[in-house]
Amino acid sequence: MPTQPTIAAVLFPGFELLDVFGPLEAFGMLAEAGQCKILTVAETAGAIASRQGPRTIADFSFDDCPALDLFLVPGGQGTRKEIINDRMLGWLRERAQSTALVTSVCTGAALLARAGLLDGRRATTNKFAFKWVVEQGPRVNWVKEARWVEDGKFLTSSGVSAGIDMALAIIAKLWDLATAERIATRMEYEWHRDAGWDPFAKVHGLV
Amino acid sequence: MPTQPTIAAVLFPGFELLDVFGPLEAFGMLAEAGQCKILTVAETAGAIASRQGPRTIADFSFDDCPALDLFLVPGGQGTRKEIINDRMLGWLRERAQSTALVTSVCTGAALLARAGLLDGRRATTNKFAFKWVVEQGPRVNWVKEARWVEDGKFLTSSGVSAGIDMALAIIAKLWDLATAERIATRMEYEWHRDAGWDPFAKVHGLV
Repeated sequence: MPTQPTIAAVLFPGFELLDVFGPLEAFGMLAEAGQCKILTVAETAGAIASRQGPRTIADFSFDDCPALDLFLVPGGQGTRKEIINDRMLGWLRERAQSTALVTSVCTGAALLARAGLLDGRRATTNKFAFKWVVEQGPRVNWVKEARWVEDGKFLTSSGVSAGIDMALAIIAKLWDLATAERIATRMEYEWHRDAGWDPFAKVHGLV
Repeated sequence: MPTQPTIAAVLFPGFELLDVFGPLEAFGMLAEAGQCKILTVAETAGAIASRQGPRTIADFSFDDCPALDLFLVPGGQGTRKEIINDRMLGWLRERAQSTALVTSVCTGAALLARAGLLDGRRATTNKFAFKWVVEQGPRVNWVKEARWVEDGKFLTSSGVSAGIDMALAIIAKLWDLATAERIATRMEYEWHRDAGWDPFAKVHGLV
């Protein structure tokens, strides 16, 4: 991993706001200090509407996106269309080869699964839409109870706000624990640093 | 409050990502069900760069923004410039008159304070930049230890992630507790529903 890694959020119409901007808030504290670069990428550069409505600009298209060290695939209602978008799945498959860390939040794991990237690996996802995501990856070892799961270069997190906890864990891994704790404090966020913490698996009847 | 309230996030260059998109994620669950409308507004419509880099589109300018039922002022490094932006302060002052609920996250309270809207009222803000915000509102009764504070139509929250807890409290107030709980569960978010919960006041040496 370089000293100033490039971190990208992958956008598509109907992406879930907090899946993207929770993690980017955490990484953003490092970007502010010149310790990483943050960018957004989508099939086509320009304005992309979130599931909630507000539009974010994709800085790069799939074709002109620079080399990445980490990318994050969010969930959201838009994943229902993206799981059959060959351009999206092909880009994820290709980029995963050259990217050190590949991550997802919520139903973003369905796209990694459809791209075949999680086959034979342990992964988790949103607990509300668990059944649907599992159907997208029959050869994935889906973990029902986990805030996030790490398997090789792949880190997959549970629903929406879980992405923040995963991002802080990545910061602790790539930088150090003190840095992750300082950022959580700046965010005034009670970081769930135990990857096994997951009360929502029970709430949604999975365990 | 109408049955489908219009909720706006006020953007400016250098706004803090999670201050905006944490609350909009929570309100977005209602927007999805047609129970509210969400929009973004800024001095000028179009792309606005966050402090972290990613750009969001302001749907409306101050001049063409429709009537609002609630607006949210985020914090972020950009507040340092906005506290002397007469167009911003004037718009906040004028719009607060006709808006049922006026809210801030983090250092967004500095803008409400500078606009004179919090004079004589209880309010809170980010704990990391507490001293700077307090200087912007010498006639405000600043609360050092609070996740969020409600005084009349004004709700001010603590730093960054505190906006999510405040938004859920607003949903409990305007809709009902069960709705807020359902949304927190969908977000897989451990909602701090006690407005007095604030370990960060101590961490930052305020109490």
